[in-house]
Amino acid sequence: MGPTKQGADSQFSGVFSVLPTPFTSEGAIDIVSLKHVVDLYINAGVNGLTALGVTAEVSRLDDRERDLVLETVIAHVGARVPVVAGATAEGTMTCVELCRQAKARKASAVMVSPPRMGKLNSDAVVAHYHAVASAVDMPIVVQDYPPASGYTVEPFLLLRIAREIPHAQTIKLEDPPTPLKTARILAEAGDLKLSILGGLGGAYLLEELMAGASGVMTGFAYPEMLVEVVKLFRGGHTLKAADAFYRYTPLLRFEAQEGIGLAIRKEVLRRRGALLYPGVRPPGPNLGASTRDALDQVVGWMRKQGVEWT
Amino acid sequence: MGPTKQGADSQFSGVFSVLPTPFTSEGAIDIVSLKHVVDLYINAGVNGLTALGVTAEVSRLDDRERDLVLETVIAHVGARVPVVAGATAEGTMTCVELCRQAKARKASAVMVSPPRMGKLNSDAVVAHYHAVASAVDMPIVVQDYPPASGYTVEPFLLLRIAREIPHAQTIKLEDPPTPLKTARILAEAGDLKLSILGGLGGAYLLEELMAGASGVMTGFAYPEMLVEVVKLFRGGHTLKAADAFYRYTPLLRFEAQEGIGLAIRKEVLRRRGALLYPGVRPPGPNLGASTRDALDQVVGWMRKQGVEWT
Amino acid sequence: MGPTKQGADSQFSGVFSVLPTPFTSEGAIDIVSLKHVVDLYINAGVNGLTALGVTAEVSRLDDRERDLVLETVIAHVGARVPVVAGATAEGTMTCVELCRQAKARKASAVMVSPPRMGKLNSDAVVAHYHAVASAVDMPIVVQDYPPASGYTVEPFLLLRIAREIPHAQTIKLEDPPTPLKTARILAEAGDLKLSILGGLGGAYLLEELMAGASGVMTGFAYPEMLVEVVKLFRGGHTLKAADAFYRYTPLLRFEAQEGIGLAIRKEVLRRRGALLYPGVRPPGPNLGASTRDALDQVVGWMRKQGVEWT
Amino acid sequence: MGPTKQGADSQFSGVFSVLPTPFTSEGAIDIVSLKHVVDLYINAGVNGLTALGVTAEVSRLDDRERDLVLETVIAHVGARVPVVAGATAEGTMTCVELCRQAKARKASAVMVSPPRMGKLNSDAVVAHYHAVASAVDMPIVVQDYPPASGYTVEPFLLLRIAREIPHAQTIKLEDPPTPLKTARILAEAGDLKLSILGGLGGAYLLEELMAGASGVMTGFAYPEMLVEVVKLFRGGHTLKAADAFYRYTPLLRFEAQEGIGLAIRKEVLRRRGALLYPGVRPPGPNLGASTRDALDQVVGWMRKQGVEWT
Repeated sequence: MGPTKQGADSQFSGVFSVLPTPFTSEGAIDIVSLKHVVDLYINAGVNGLTALGVTAEVSRLDDRERDLVLETVIAHVGARVPVVAGATAEGTMTCVELCRQAKARKASAVMVSPPRMGKLNSDAVVAHYHAVASAVDMPIVVQDYPPASGYTVEPFLLLRIAREIPHAQTIKLEDPPTPLKTARILAEAGDLKLSILGGLGGAYLLEELMAGASGVMTGFAYPEMLVEVVKLFRGGHTLKAADAFYRYTPLLRFEAQEGIGLAIRKEVLRRRGALLYPGVRPPGPNLGASTRDALDQVVGWMRKQGVEWT
Repeated sequence: MGPTKQGADSQFSGVFSVLPTPFTSEGAIDIVSLKHVVDLYINAGVNGLTALGVTAEVSRLDDRERDLVLETVIAHVGARVPVVAGATAEGTMTCVELCRQAKARKASAVMVSPPRMGKLNSDAVVAHYHAVASAVDMPIVVQDYPPASGYTVEPFLLLRIAREIPHAQTIKLEDPPTPLKTARILAEAGDLKLSILGGLGGAYLLEELMAGASGVMTGFAYPEMLVEVVKLFRGGHTLKAADAFYRYTPLLRFEAQEGIGLAIRKEVLRRRGALLYPGVRPPGPNLGASTRDALDQVVGWMRKQGVEWT
Repeated sequence: MGPTKQGADSQFSGVFSVLPTPFTSEGAIDIVSLKHVVDLYINAGVNGLTALGVTAEVSRLDDRERDLVLETVIAHVGARVPVVAGATAEGTMTCVELCRQAKARKASAVMVSPPRMGKLNSDAVVAHYHAVASAVDMPIVVQDYPPASGYTVEPFLLLRIAREIPHAQTIKLEDPPTPLKTARILAEAGDLKLSILGGLGGAYLLEELMAGASGVMTGFAYPEMLVEVVKLFRGGHTLKAADAFYRYTPLLRFEAQEGIGLAIRKEVLRRRGALLYPGVRPPGPNLGASTRDALDQVVGWMRKQGVEWT
Repeated sequence: MGPTKQGADSQFSGVFSVLPTPFTSEGAIDIVSLKHVVDLYINAGVNGLTALGVTAEVSRLDDRERDLVLETVIAHVGARVPVVAGATAEGTMTCVELCRQAKARKASAVMVSPPRMGKLNSDAVVAHYHAVASAVDMPIVVQDYPPASGYTVEPFLLLRIAREIPHAQTIKLEDPPTPLKTARILAEAGDLKLSILGGLGGAYLLEELMAGASGVMTGFAYPEMLVEVVKLFRGGHTLKAADAFYRYTPLLRFEAQEGIGLAIRKEVLRRRGALLYPGVRPPGPNLGASTRDALDQVVGWMRKQGVEWT
């Protein structure tokens, strides 16, 4: 056993890859590419998948499309790995309804951010998670990603949720600095078994693991690296894990650019053969020639360091 | 003719009342109350209605519920007044789809805010409105309400949209100070015929009219006052308009409280007999005894000033 | 004794008027007008004054000007009423230094908001107040005004501060809805003696008193009304208090306009003879003819309701 | 000549290092360390220095400390390189005053962000820069860093400022994605000679240069790399520049962590011998053991790649 602490739901640890929604050049959902990207991640050895997260451009899908994506992913994954279904919504009732749909579709868990609302407060956040947990009997991944929800879930509140709601003891932590926040939460967790997964594109995976994270949940387009780093780290080979990780930092950093990161990620997945067309739905921006040139430089250098496609 | 400038779409001037979505105590849509509130506003003499705005808690409805509300409203309104349908969405394609549904349901216009997105910019906003206008041939009300969209549409940008897109020359202006911004926009509008409607609960109706607004679009629960003020002002009776308006400022101010304003408004509509149950959907807060007591004071005083229900 | 709960520092209850900084037309500090406005507030019977608050445009003063204002105010006030000195700063050391200067100048208390900082959290907020309280032995008014600090202090955190720091048991509450938040804090306060003062321009004074507030701290330009409302309410005459209060809601509402409220307030103080010149320092906007016309309407109506200048 | 476009003020291109303010363990300004860090940057071959930027924790200094820092830096630098002085302020008059002090101290230029203010708009931003330029005859670096000012300066507005104010044609661009925004600005600049400098810790230096940036202005603690990358890129050796750059991405990424980046940077400067004590002033957080361990990994790996201290 490696140095990480194990959370209550050991099912939710290691690498969970967050799926993008592939579109055709006309903007329709590209089911064939969606299956390809599922296979790319599973073949890389990830421990699970997440559908309908922020990376899926879920806010630009309608209800019918959401369901189509979830149905397709779960059918295509089969029994290979667990699938977490994003179910964040601005209303508690719509959130509950999305969770029920996820359960009906046989998702292994749901992922829920605090609801976006003016004047949100900690009691209202806790009440929201209670309502969801009461209505649907399945694990809940609590997502702490302030840009999406407009609300920062402080450590005390993540711990309060986990203590009051046994089904909500897995956290997707995306409020920087994530390694420091991970360490703070675990230091105050006492006997509580939490599973903290990093996010932020995987850019701080090594540091998050060193701080006690159980893994990472991200759509980074080279899942092989994430899998290898977690394996090496858990095996006690921190230096080797670091070596495997740092070679990818030119891309991790490049993809971290606000506003254009998802378009870069989809372009990398296109180059890897998983997506037929890399576009995001408008009003999201697509890549111009200069960004593609810069990406060429990054990928070229990584190849010289021994990074290869599958 | 009164002192207001007339916009291109004179159809969209005067008082447009924004409909709330009434719920039962279990949170289901209360169709009977929805029809009652429609009748309350129309009987008060408003020039039109707006369905599926922020006041309708539209972000807490699912796609099926949205359509149910719109279908119900338009069928019940009939030919009495025009109905504007809210169609704001985070994705351009979902926005277009909502606009198409609104047109299919025979709405007179759609209302669209800039799409919520990190790193939004003015060119992306204009492109969004162009895409909508190209796809659907109907008037577009441009809503400038920064808390909802996260983006402030400056006067130059509202004017650019209006110049490039003839169908988008009606503005629902809710970026304070609205009277000053109204005056600035009209001062730079040149020959462009704009219709600017105030919002913000009607709290600045008189000042907006004095600045050149064509009317107001709000869910304020005493539409009779809004109608009377617009009529008096257009007739040149500014002092009488002011007198009719200021008596309502205790309530306009009370309802302007962030976080709880909509719950107050629904409680007033319940007292007026339009809603059976005043609750908002969670995580929105409902009224406690102390807020209802404070409301009693406000309403009591207004009655002493001669304000009566219909 | 009236119906309000009394806080630990009964010294800080009732009406505290927040002083603006008067400028000449060239933007220099106008000492003569500053003394006039001090006298206007004291003659109206207020219980205290606050210097160097947000209303004082303190963020547009340099360190020397801050000290000049504070020295002038305290010297001119003499023993008439206590003076609270704003001492908010982004750094803990600079905040401590401002508190020391306030103490040296014989201020009765300091007012401190959480420090503006990216990724601020509740522990850092508490540490900031501890550092201030350890360094300077004087009462601290905790200001909860999210637009200024970028941080909302939830009830549990205000209570934690008050419990850990006996000198910090007076709160200036400006996070709407303030009446509801006041009630929530007091409901959880137990034996703790808190003094909660409303703000927000006084626009919710009556409702805040009904919820248990000890008074109000605001720069509203008709302090006579604030004094009268508090007196009537404490005497048990709630209906009379309401009557005295609501007549001012046309102005309270008008002044609540974001971005231009302070300029309106200074114009009212000019009309009352306290300020020679009403301008705010740039980049703050000044009033155009249309806003002055709208103000004329408001003031005209209030006069008809019996509201008179001193 | 290399592939970058040259701005109007060729004086402001290449590498400008932004100085931190070193403190003693008690929080006082450490003048000796300040001189050491000046020398470290100049010895690395940078083209200039910037004092009193965000990295200097300028918001936690009082007016006297600001002046002490500026005086010390300019005296110690002497004629070796130009010094840009940060002069951002919330008030136009205080900004002008800071610029005047900078000029009196013989700074080569000032750096000014839009003033932080609720309801700021593009006209007010332009008026602010006009007022500064009218009052002080020296080059102005326009800083576009939304987290500091709360305002995003869109390309059209940066161009409007540059066209109307010849002294304001150097931009410190820190609104991601910076390479894309750089390209957009230059594409619309026409004959205007702009100098765009990247920021964001240098994390996108290569991509910014490829997009046409004239250099970078950042406090990154390995200025040797920045100097080398700019030199190689200008010499047409893009691949070599990329190779020199990417080896630093583990640290560039690590330092990019919101909330803790500056503390990391100061720790690196301490390890390099420039700072005696690495602490930031409270409420800024300092580094715990886990972050220092993670930094050890990063630095260890970079050394294996051939990265050495001076």
